[in-house]
Amino acid sequence: MNHTRKKLVDELMQEQELGALIFWRPEELVMMLGYYPLWGLSFLVYTNDEKPVLFVPQAEPDDVLPPGIEIKKFPWGELSPINPWNVLFEEIQKVLDSKNITGKKISFIQERGGTTPCRMSGETPLLPENLINSLLKINNGNFKECDGPLLSLFEFKTEDDLKGIKIAHKVVGKAVAVFEKNAVPGMTEARLAALIEFEIATAMEDSAIFSSKGWPQVQSGTNLVYGGRFNRSTAKTISNGDHVMLELAACVNGYWVDITRTIAVGETNDTQKEIFKTVQEAQQLAIKTIRPGISMAAIDTIARTYIENAGYGKFFNHALGHHVGFRYHDAGQGFSPFSAGILKEGMVLTVEPGIYGEELKSGVRIEDNLLVTKDGYELLSDY
Amino acid sequence: MNHTRKKLVDELMQEQELGALIFWRPEELVMMLGYYPLWGLSFLVYTNDEKPVLFVPQAEPDDVLPPGIEIKKFPWGELSPINPWNVLFEEIQKVLDSKNITGKKISFIQERGGTTPCRMSGETPLLPENLINSLLKINNGNFKECDGPLLSLFEFKTEDDLKGIKIAHKVVGKAVAVFEKNAVPGMTEARLAALIEFEIATAMEDSAIFSSKGWPQVQSGTNLVYGGRFNRSTAKTISNGDHVMLELAACVNGYWVDITRTIAVGETNDTQKEIFKTVQEAQQLAIKTIRPGISMAAIDTIARTYIENAGYGKFFNHALGHHVGFRYHDAGQGFSPFSAGILKEGMVLTVEPGIYGEELKSGVRIEDNLLVTKDGYELLSDY
Repeated sequence: MNHTRKKLVDELMQEQELGALIFWRPEELVMMLGYYPLWGLSFLVYTNDEKPVLFVPQAEPDDVLPPGIEIKKFPWGELSPINPWNVLFEEIQKVLDSKNITGKKISFIQERGGTTPCRMSGETPLLPENLINSLLKINNGNFKECDGPLLSLFEFKTEDDLKGIKIAHKVVGKAVAVFEKNAVPGMTEARLAALIEFEIATAMEDSAIFSSKGWPQVQSGTNLVYGGRFNRSTAKTISNGDHVMLELAACVNGYWVDITRTIAVGETNDTQKEIFKTVQEAQQLAIKTIRPGISMAAIDTIARTYIENAGYGKFFNHALGHHVGFRYHDAGQGFSPFSAGILKEGMVLTVEPGIYGEELKSGVRIEDNLLVTKDGYELLSDY
Repeated sequence: MNHTRKKLVDELMQEQELGALIFWRPEELVMMLGYYPLWGLSFLVYTNDEKPVLFVPQAEPDDVLPPGIEIKKFPWGELSPINPWNVLFEEIQKVLDSKNITGKKISFIQERGGTTPCRMSGETPLLPENLINSLLKINNGNFKECDGPLLSLFEFKTEDDLKGIKIAHKVVGKAVAVFEKNAVPGMTEARLAALIEFEIATAMEDSAIFSSKGWPQVQSGTNLVYGGRFNRSTAKTISNGDHVMLELAACVNGYWVDITRTIAVGETNDTQKEIFKTVQEAQQLAIKTIRPGISMAAIDTIARTYIENAGYGKFFNHALGHHVGFRYHDAGQGFSPFSAGILKEGMVLTVEPGIYGEELKSGVRIEDNLLVTKDGYELLSDY
């Protein structure tokens, strides 16, 4: 566990007068320990006595476990009629008892929707129905809801997190090259997406990358008129004169990238050229303004006003960006007209203006990931 | 909605004296309507007045919506400060009011863990934290827990479901051919898995297949000694004398296949040959016994006893099989020593004995999917 993260969490616990925190969603374990669980069934009992305990299911591979922390295993994955969860909840209670937490409150994020997939992601983790209620009963029900402060932890990326995020961007850079090379007439959206997915998956041939998975969506031509509402690849073949858009989420060793690229194939028409240029310039204007202290709503306004002034306001139907890194869409205030957020050093956000519409018969989005630095920004997706 | 499924659900509602059911997990919508949601945020309010209502988020593409059912949209995906969920819960209440459900109880599955990923699966669906509690308040809190009967709906596959499941098996058959061709010395586990994933994704070039995604895991050589506890691909290169195992989950148009194949590359040793043969024969013995009326525990015992008698009992550390089709692992009683289930016509199950162990320096699993027919079984994964 890195020093900067520990300091932030310890401060939060002191402010909120907490005795312990429980982290269990895969993205929380990545944030706290750089540990991306295989099964998605691990629980970190964090106390600020320097001796947190990580509970993992018996079936979790030893070599994926983080170093420098006490590991306790609970039965899971073996042929047994035992309910593993009762064992786990009792063991968590024992840890809390041994640390004299009683009398103090504990906290954890209750949200179960919108978490990152764990490494074995054909199914969401087989967590029990009564998970939240059981955790709420632990520590004699001495629980304090701290979702706001806890979720705000995700907004700040430490040096270690940035290392992971930059490795992920390197993998995505290669996938973008595959997209650029293969977005040609005759190629189907489905095959192009599959090629990109393949490129990302083969990054695991580097033994330092133990997990690499992409969720690419390719849309082209008139399919792009809905590019602001949903993204999905189809059997459609790319034609001359198409815009081709790649919406790409990728997770490498637990760290996420979310980027979008649009390519003009062959000769596009004047409207397409105009919306492409408008999106590009709106994005550049917004990006150039990024630095600590600026309000997120103001950044959104810069891109939105530019697009409105170009006459395409009603075709930019989504927010300008969001935090990214621990998840496809990290928690926290992002770039939107309704945002109350202020930019701070160490934040990583997307900037993704777009113009799409049935009237336009086309669409464009360009999305990059940026780190807010001491006096400006660093473009992470510079490829 | 198909006639057979409707009949089963109507019977359940009558037996449980329910006024309405709410289905919302992606696999429930596939089961009820053959509809595999893109966002995973759709809700079916089912009443047995022949007029169920499907609520979908505004951002859900029109062409993926099922025919022959009333569709209501709730705001989602547009730039707005409105809380979409409050709108949804109010609208569901209005539908129930208009049908005079008040006084009767409603039900739904509360379980949020272990659901199928929706089509946009880089993140679990962004369902609100208070989802279950909010749904429980609907209908004046007139709720009846019916998880047992509701989950048992998944155990039976109708003719329409089988059509979908068989299309998925056709796609997987091609992916297995890719595995067999490429499991050769010099190939990495990671690349072999990526090739299989690619084959499954390109099935979407057939416009009848709107969604096709695989989660392959390839393990080889000594990596296989943990094949019964977890599966994951690594940077390891396949060598002569390796067993190579493919664990594959695939979802095609919402219908799932879960199979495993093991290949002996080059000349394997006597232990490997013996465990391979033992697993094969145990599986065949179990499969041949499958027909309606037989207990699931008995089928497990047949394979387990055979493996025990061959001296490998302690290396078969998991259950023999489970329901499959609406999910990677469908709900319900499966083939295990602790199972209380009885085989019935229309069930689809996996049969997957395995032998793995550090002492053996190798492992084997073979997994097929079978339909229980009137007087026996049909092998669905016959490729």
